[in-house]
Amino acid sequence: MTDIARHHTTPRMSQIVTHGETIYLAGQVGDGETVAAQTQSCLDKVDALLAEAGSDRSRLLQATIWLADMDDFAEMNAVWDAWVPAGQAPARACGEARLARDTLRVEVIVVAAA
Amino acid sequence: MTDIARHHTTPRMSQIVTHGETIYLAGQVGDGETVAAQTQSCLDKVDALLAEAGSDRSRLLQATIWLADMDDFAEMNAVWDAWVPAGQAPARACGEARLARDTLRVEVIVVAAA
Amino acid sequence: MTDIARHHTTPRMSQIVTHGETIYLAGQVGDGETVAAQTQSCLDKVDALLAEAGSDRSRLLQATIWLADMDDFAEMNAVWDAWVPAGQAPARACGEARLARDTLRVEVIVVAAA
Repeated sequence: MTDIARHHTTPRMSQIVTHGETIYLAGQVGDGETVAAQTQSCLDKVDALLAEAGSDRSRLLQATIWLADMDDFAEMNAVWDAWVPAGQAPARACGEARLARDTLRVEVIVVAAA
Repeated sequence: MTDIARHHTTPRMSQIVTHGETIYLAGQVGDGETVAAQTQSCLDKVDALLAEAGSDRSRLLQATIWLADMDDFAEMNAVWDAWVPAGQAPARACGEARLARDTLRVEVIVVAAA
Repeated sequence: MTDIARHHTTPRMSQIVTHGETIYLAGQVGDGETVAAQTQSCLDKVDALLAEAGSDRSRLLQATIWLADMDDFAEMNAVWDAWVPAGQAPARACGEARLARDTLRVEVIVVAAA
C-alpha cells in the first residue's frame, strides 16, 4: 500500500497530497485585482507548494484552469505562458466557472510528479 | 502493464475504475431537495463505492466539487467538513457548473488511493 | 523518479503527458457545427493521441466532459456511448462550462492507462 502524505491540512482540504510519485494540489486562487495579478499570485503559490512537496514546475502533469469570465482568457494565458518552463508544459484544460468568492477571477488545479 | 478494474459499468461510464493503487470514481450526485441533503447523499455513495473498491474516505487524494449555485457553498461545506476524517482531507477544488439535470445542486468527483 | 514524456508541447500545454503508466491528455475540442459533430471530432483526436501514447480507448480511466450548454447532453451522449468500448467505460463526470471560444460546444479531458 503506497504511502499518502498530506500538508497544510484543515478539516476541509489539504493543500498538498502526495501519493507515491503523484502530487495533487488543492485549487489555488490568487490575490490582486486583475486576472493577470491573480494568475501570477496563483502560480507563485503553486511554485511554493511544489517546492514543499519536493517537486517544481518542470514536473507538471495536468493543469485545469477555471476562469470566472472566459473573456480573461488572453490575459491569463500571457502570465501562464511566461511561467511554464520551455518544453515542459502540462496537459491543460481551461473552462469558465464562477468561483467561491466573486472577487476571484482564476483558479488553477495542478497534478504534478514527485 | 498495470491492471485496470471496473465496477458498475454501463455503456456510458463506470462508477469505479481502479488502476494500480489509484481509484477514480464517476461524478456522484445525490438525492434530496436541499444542497445539504444532496451533499450527504453524494458522500454516502462515495463511501459505498470506496468500500467496494477496498478503500475508504481516509484515503481520498483529490476531490472536485461542482455546485449548480455557488451561493450553496457554505451549506455544502458544513456537510463536507463533518464528513472528512480529521487530518485526512484531500486536495480540493470547488467551482460552479450547471449539472446534468436542473434538480441537481452538487456533484462530487473523487480520486482515492487503494 | 518515474519518467515523464511529453508530446505536442507548446509554450502553453502538451497534448500528451505520460507519467509512468498514467497518460494525461489536454482538453480536446472538436470541429463541426453541431455538438454531435464536435463530440465525434474530439473523440477522434482522443483516439489519435492515445495511439501515439501507446494506448487506446479501451484503457480510459477518467473522463471529464464540459458542455457549453447542458441542453446538448443527450446529443453528446449518443456519440459518446457509441464510442466507448463495451465493458470498458471510464469514470465520467459532465458539467456545463463556457469554453475558450464561443463556437466550441464540448471539451473532453481524459486520463488513461499506458
